[in-house]
Amino acid sequence: MKRVQLGAGKEFDLIRRFVYAGAGDDVAVGPGDDIAVGPGDDAAVLRDGWVVTTDLSVEGVHFRREWLTDEEVGWRAAAVALSDLAAMAATPVAVLVSMAVPTTEGGDSVSGGVDVEAVQRGVRAASSSVGAVVVGGDLTRSPGPLFVDVVALGRTAWPVQRDGAEAGDHVWVTGTLGAAAAAVTLWEAGDQPPEPLRRAFAHPEPRVEAARCLVEQEVVDALIDLSDGLAGDAGHLAAASGVTVILEEEALPVEPAVVDALGVERARDLALFGGDDYELCFVTDPGVVDPEYFRRKYGLQLTRVGTVIPATEDGPGVRLRGADGVVRSLHRSGFDHWGTD
Amino acid sequence: MKRVQLGAGKEFDLIRRFVYAGAGDDVAVGPGDDIAVGPGDDAAVLRDGWVVTTDLSVEGVHFRREWLTDEEVGWRAAAVALSDLAAMAATPVAVLVSMAVPTTEGGDSVSGGVDVEAVQRGVRAASSSVGAVVVGGDLTRSPGPLFVDVVALGRTAWPVQRDGAEAGDHVWVTGTLGAAAAAVTLWEAGDQPPEPLRRAFAHPEPRVEAARCLVEQEVVDALIDLSDGLAGDAGHLAAASGVTVILEEEALPVEPAVVDALGVERARDLALFGGDDYELCFVTDPGVVDPEYFRRKYGLQLTRVGTVIPATEDGPGVRLRGADGVVRSLHRSGFDHWGTD
Repeated sequence: MKRVQLGAGKEFDLIRRFVYAGAGDDVAVGPGDDIAVGPGDDAAVLRDGWVVTTDLSVEGVHFRREWLTDEEVGWRAAAVALSDLAAMAATPVAVLVSMAVPTTEGGDSVSGGVDVEAVQRGVRAASSSVGAVVVGGDLTRSPGPLFVDVVALGRTAWPVQRDGAEAGDHVWVTGTLGAAAAAVTLWEAGDQPPEPLRRAFAHPEPRVEAARCLVEQEVVDALIDLSDGLAGDAGHLAAASGVTVILEEEALPVEPAVVDALGVERARDLALFGGDDYELCFVTDPGVVDPEYFRRKYGLQLTRVGTVIPATEDGPGVRLRGADGVVRSLHRSGFDHWGTD
Repeated sequence: MKRVQLGAGKEFDLIRRFVYAGAGDDVAVGPGDDIAVGPGDDAAVLRDGWVVTTDLSVEGVHFRREWLTDEEVGWRAAAVALSDLAAMAATPVAVLVSMAVPTTEGGDSVSGGVDVEAVQRGVRAASSSVGAVVVGGDLTRSPGPLFVDVVALGRTAWPVQRDGAEAGDHVWVTGTLGAAAAAVTLWEAGDQPPEPLRRAFAHPEPRVEAARCLVEQEVVDALIDLSDGLAGDAGHLAAASGVTVILEEEALPVEPAVVDALGVERARDLALFGGDDYELCFVTDPGVVDPEYFRRKYGLQLTRVGTVIPATEDGPGVRLRGADGVVRSLHRSGFDHWGTD
């Protein structure tokens, strides 16, 4: 069982302690061949090429109910988990959903205003959009917020991990960045985000097909999905691979609708640190990717955003080359669900 | 993919709607051989004999933090999920844990008094007690109570389901019943339960080895674990098999410590309806089980508690034969996490 390094950040410090607590050295000793990849990557890999991941969506932390329909709550919760399968280049097969649903005090309703079936419809729709079916789950009441945990299982003959990046590789991302985070920024300021931004947050599309296509071409050295923001997730990839990633500020595929809504500086900031993009970030040898072919086949933009170099003196990490050509450290490490902001 | 019937009860009505919402007829059509058993049994069964289940433990619904140490919270959450693997006669392999942890307002602690590492140690201890390792998870803050969702994955060459009971079969349970529910009863009355009762709730032991032994002897026609109370879970087994189960009131393996604490009538009530036992209930042909062998080998009591008969006129279900020989309907259907009591 491999042990994977995570990038910097308070949340990841806690996850490190959480996942490895009490493990001692035996974390590296799984039961024989049953476990191929253990804690720390986007998903665990089991015998026979099964890949499994679990993702938690908590009302008031990951979403607010006034931002989304109940069906979108379900879609989003499932899409986030399925995106972790895409990040392993796995084909989704099955989904399980656990929900804790707020109850109405003294009322006859068991759902506290949440339409449980609508949430489930959303989970089912996101699952079937990538070929998976719902095979089980758990349901209980919540004395607090709505809580949706989605387990996604898939299969792959060739899981792509985070740890294969090498100096000289190019760094790419799919799609545009910052739209979902911009929607959250606008909601939190009391504004209604324009539809493309709202939809990016409410209806992320797991890049399952794109990941499979890239991996079948045997060009991808390392792969991750963007949930914590490009800076944070490239940091995980860099840490797992023991390298440094130089991102090019001028190359970032900033979502134009974010520039329209919030201006170019804020848009770039959200593209780097915003989170919730659920696009792919991957590294390849130079010259092996054809963005035009990819755009024609998948209708999906591919942008080269940087280069891998050997780890710098202060260890693996992510740096940003500005428009002025100067390379700077990055001071935030992605959207932090444990932070106060 | 098989569709399994659930027994009576408000919670199960909702689960029926939840699991099958929006599914139409296509719930019976999984992606080929990848899914062998879908929603409704203790766990889903996937290709290559992988079995997967997910179980949600919510503070204030399934436990209170003043009843348990943080390590016991983790043990219990994992044991409950692993018990579902035992109910499929699967060998546990891997566990994933998602936690949402209450935060302290304005404090530096991210854990709101919950020792996340202690919870994780408990999960790890319960997992390793049955040979499984923790391979992943998710961690976030909760604006409400502590949530722990445990995904358990195991393998079996021969999953035993709920739906194989036939008229004439005998019904058995492992261990004694009612202890965990008695602990809850005492806590809720403001008393401190005696240690055997407290431990039954805090430290359930998934009957993995016993289930495997029974199945290897090829004597088990149907199997379920007892989470909702014997009456409720025998009801699921009866519904899935299309039969009626007659339980013998005099034969119930009531936990003696419960009789001491609460009297014989309340003890019998908790053995039938209490929930949280995490023992096994299974049916076999007559004359094929040797309880004495089982007790010597596993230190575990086996008790025949009833008989399977053809479904009665009002459909499959569970009935109770009292000490007076009269067979009566059962009016509660197990511990109901959606109920008001």
